[in-house]
Amino acid sequence: MSESQPAVPGTVRPGGRTAKVRAAVLEATEDALAATGFHALNMDQVAAAAGVGKTTVYRRWGTPVGLVTDLLRDMADRSLPSADTGTLEGDLRANAALVLKTLTDPRMAAVFRAVIAAAACDEDCADALRGFYRARLTEWAPVVARATERGELDADTDAVEVLRAVSAPLYYRFMISREPLGPDVADRAVNAALAAARAGVFAAGRAGN
Amino acid sequence: MSESQPAVPGTVRPGGRTAKVRAAVLEATEDALAATGFHALNMDQVAAAAGVGKTTVYRRWGTPVGLVTDLLRDMADRSLPSADTGTLEGDLRANAALVLKTLTDPRMAAVFRAVIAAAACDEDCADALRGFYRARLTEWAPVVARATERGELDADTDAVEVLRAVSAPLYYRFMISREPLGPDVADRAVNAALAAARAGVFAAGRAGN
Repeated sequence: MSESQPAVPGTVRPGGRTAKVRAAVLEATEDALAATGFHALNMDQVAAAAGVGKTTVYRRWGTPVGLVTDLLRDMADRSLPSADTGTLEGDLRANAALVLKTLTDPRMAAVFRAVIAAAACDEDCADALRGFYRARLTEWAPVVARATERGELDADTDAVEVLRAVSAPLYYRFMISREPLGPDVADRAVNAALAAARAGVFAAGRAGN
Repeated sequence: MSESQPAVPGTVRPGGRTAKVRAAVLEATEDALAATGFHALNMDQVAAAAGVGKTTVYRRWGTPVGLVTDLLRDMADRSLPSADTGTLEGDLRANAALVLKTLTDPRMAAVFRAVIAAAACDEDCADALRGFYRARLTEWAPVVARATERGELDADTDAVEVLRAVSAPLYYRFMISREPLGPDVADRAVNAALAAARAGVFAAGRAGN
C-alpha cells in the first residue's frame, strides 16, 4: 500500500484508499503500542509496518502523539454494545467484566497504558481520550436508565456516574496504584457502586452531602 | 554544586554532599516535569538546572525514567500525616480534600500526570509508583481503624480498600476520562465510599458478592 503506487481502477472505491491507509496505519500504531509502549513509538517503523510511505504518515499524523490521538478517535467509533441481563446488578457485572478483560489482556493493557500516557503529554490527545470514555460511558447508560424504569434505583440517578463508579476502582489499580487486578476487584467495584447508587449517592445534580 | 568543586571542610557533613546533590537533582526533575511533562524530560537540562555535572546525573540516574523513579521514592518518604477529626466522615472528607488539592494544583497536577505516564513506560518506575501509593494509603489507614474501634464500621473492614474507594473516582477523572474535578466530585467520592463501607462491601477477605 505504498503511497507512490497508483490506485488500480475498479479495485479501490472513491474514499476507500484513504480509509485503507488509515486502517493500516492505526493497526500498526496499536501493534507498536502493544509491543513497546508510547515512549518508543516511532513514525518510520509504523509507516514500514503499515506498508505506507513515510511522507504520508508524517504529513497526515505529524507526530507519534498524533497517531495515538487518531487511534483513540477510531477506538471511540468502534461500538461495544451494552449488556441487557434484566437486572442492574447483572448489567453492571457484565460491564465490570468487560473492563477487567480489557485491562488484564496483555495486548490491550499495554495499549491502554500507552494511550493514557500519551494523553498526559498532549491536550489534543487528552481530548480524544475524553471522547473515547464519553462514548463508552454513554453507550452503557441505558443499563441504568432501565434500572430506574424498573424501580431498582431512584429516577434521578445519574447513569454515567454509576458507570464511572464501576470503572474507577479498576482503572485506579491498573494505572495509578499499579496493584493487581482480578475478578475480586471487579466484584467489589460493582458491589460498591450498587450500594452507593441504592443509597442515592449518584442522584443527578446532587453532588455534595 | 558542580561535581568538580571540592567540598569545603566543615561546610559539608559526611553523606551531606550526596544528599544535597540528590535533593537538587530531584527538585530540578520535579520542576521540569511540572513545566513540560515526562515526554520532554531532558537529563542535560535537569543537570544544568540543579547545578550538578552531567556525568554525575547520567552515572547516578541513567535515564529520564530513572530520575522519575527516584523522585517517586523521595515523594513516598515525605510524610503527609492523616487527619483525626473524630469521625470517619470527617477524616475521609479531609483525605478527599487533600487528593483534590493535589490533583487541581497546576504544578502538582502536571507532576502527577508525568510520574504516572512515566510509570506506564517502565517497570522499575511502576514499582516506585506502587510504593508511593502504598505509603500514602497505609499512612491514612488508622482513620478507618479508629472508625471500627468507635463502632462506625464492622471490625473486619479493609481500611486500605475504603481509602482506595475515596481516591479512585478522583484519579479516574484526572488521568483516565480526563473530566473536570471539583469539590462536588470529592464529596460524591466520600459519600459513595461511606455508603459502600457501611454496607459491608469492604469487608477484608470478602471480595465477591
